Amino acid sequence: MTTSAIAEALRLHPGPVDLASIETDAAPGFDGKKADGQTALADLGSELSDLQERLWAERTAGSERRVLVVLQGMDTSGKGGVLRHTIGLVDPQGVRITSFKAPTDEERAHDFLWRIEKGLPPAGYIGVFDRSHYEDVLIARVRGFAEPDEIERRYGAINEFEARLVDEGVSIIKCMLHISADEQKARLAERLANPDKHWKYNPCDIDERAFWPAYREAYETALERTSTQIAPWHVVPSDKKWFRNLAVGQLLLDTLRGLDLQWPAADFDVEAETARLIGEAPVQ
Amino acid sequence: MTTSAIAEALRLHPGPVDLASIETDAAPGFDGKKADGQTALADLGSELSDLQERLWAERTAGSERRVLVVLQGMDTSGKGGVLRHTIGLVDPQGVRITSFKAPTDEERAHDFLWRIEKGLPPAGYIGVFDRSHYEDVLIARVRGFAEPDEIERRYGAINEFEARLVDEGVSIIKCMLHISADEQKARLAERLANPDKHWKYNPCDIDERAFWPAYREAYETALERTSTQIAPWHVVPSDKKWFRNLAVGQLLLDTLRGLDLQWPAADFDVEAETARLIGEAPVQ
Repeated sequence: MTTSAIAEALRLHPGPVDLASIETDAAPGFDGKKADGQTALADLGSELSDLQERLWAERTAGSERRVLVVLQGMDTSGKGGVLRHTIGLVDPQGVRITSFKAPTDEERAHDFLWRIEKGLPPAGYIGVFDRSHYEDVLIARVRGFAEPDEIERRYGAINEFEARLVDEGVSIIKCMLHISADEQKARLAERLANPDKHWKYNPCDIDERAFWPAYREAYETALERTSTQIAPWHVVPSDKKWFRNLAVGQLLLDTLRGLDLQWPAADFDVEAETARLIGEAPVQ
Repeated sequence: MTTSAIAEALRLHPGPVDLASIETDAAPGFDGKKADGQTALADLGSELSDLQERLWAERTAGSERRVLVVLQGMDTSGKGGVLRHTIGLVDPQGVRITSFKAPTDEERAHDFLWRIEKGLPPAGYIGVFDRSHYEDVLIARVRGFAEPDEIERRYGAINEFEARLVDEGVSIIKCMLHISADEQKARLAERLANPDKHWKYNPCDIDERAFWPAYREAYETALERTSTQIAPWHVVPSDKKWFRNLAVGQLLLDTLRGLDLQWPAADFDVEAETARLIGEAPVQ
């Protein structure tokens, strides 16, 4: 399996995680500036599209394989931007985006993984989770929506859940979009300054910033406990939007390349069908 | 409401429909060749994206408005190509594609509109139907899957259903992708000749061609009976793929322009929030 320099640089290795030591405005594994990065992302488009179509085609021959991109990050870290600029590069027919908001009463009446299971991509699809089951060990921990022993149980439940998905043919790409508190402040200020962006702003966003250190700690614990060999986390420096978009695109491309996707062989007699088409009665 | 020359040219007017008299390889309402058409489509992208984001934003302020593009056409007419090249221009977060295959046992146990209702786009979305409730008066009529009086009932049921959708805030864009039998033959031959496209080929495709005149008649009746003032049909000449993609893009743009979409006003005190952000305690 090919692994790009970007993927190597972003992949989290086993052991304690210290987010403060990971730069938010770096571009690890990439040698270039903004314009180069934008070009590099656009250049991924045609291979991504080709491989996505092969994944889609494979399912017509019975393959169960699919890809799941998990996007996590603080408010304004750019989950929407990745969807627009990176996922927007591939055919929307083969994409399934699921956004997880605060759980509904019905969802709360089930185990936390119930709604996640329902949002999984079918065979042949690239699924993207905009937030995910990780909210249940992040905001749930910071805001005390679940007891500590339940949070503790969830790390193990997540690892078992993801291991089952991998066994079922799901390739999981977990991305934590890593921004600094200062960068978030600048992005919120920009939303406030621009009337076209007021709809994106919520006064709770500032309230939530008071919990920044608690979120960082919750992320560090979640990353450490759930970055496994089969479904590792990638910490994506996201102060630079262009690098964030490029990095997720590169991770997706690496994963699709690693699947060694082939066009399915014909399940019919090509020569006989060609003769039948040529020899058909006139149609009009 | 702005209506483009393409929309004017493609819109079906009340009265009997004669598909044989509508050219399949024309580019009505557009003065240019392939390269011009491809450029014109790309040029729609930024305005489409801007208007789509406004539609999306509006829903955060309680709007129920949404758009539904209905794509119908014979096999190989290019429904997938429109999804990839035209719908692919906008943010996938705001798109909901529903493909209707042969109905399942559960779907068959309900009225034909039951599964359609479930596939409707939520507020703020651009929904696209890849095939639709029209299959229930097309293949159902040609292949006798329903009795003639049931087919007859369905035209009225469709018109009432669509009128209700329009009342609920859905803008409906109905497109019949119009190709010639010869063009279909050439496209099937291309699929047979190219191993990378074998997965798209199905021997039933040739069987179905024997019913071409019956399909034409079923389309003519369906178009005549269901092209209403509030949800007219557009017959899109589709032998030229570039024109087909451009035409659907232009119809979508006209519809979004007609909605006069505005950014929602802030529902919070902008100055107070700005002061709060500037004056917050240090976060790190």
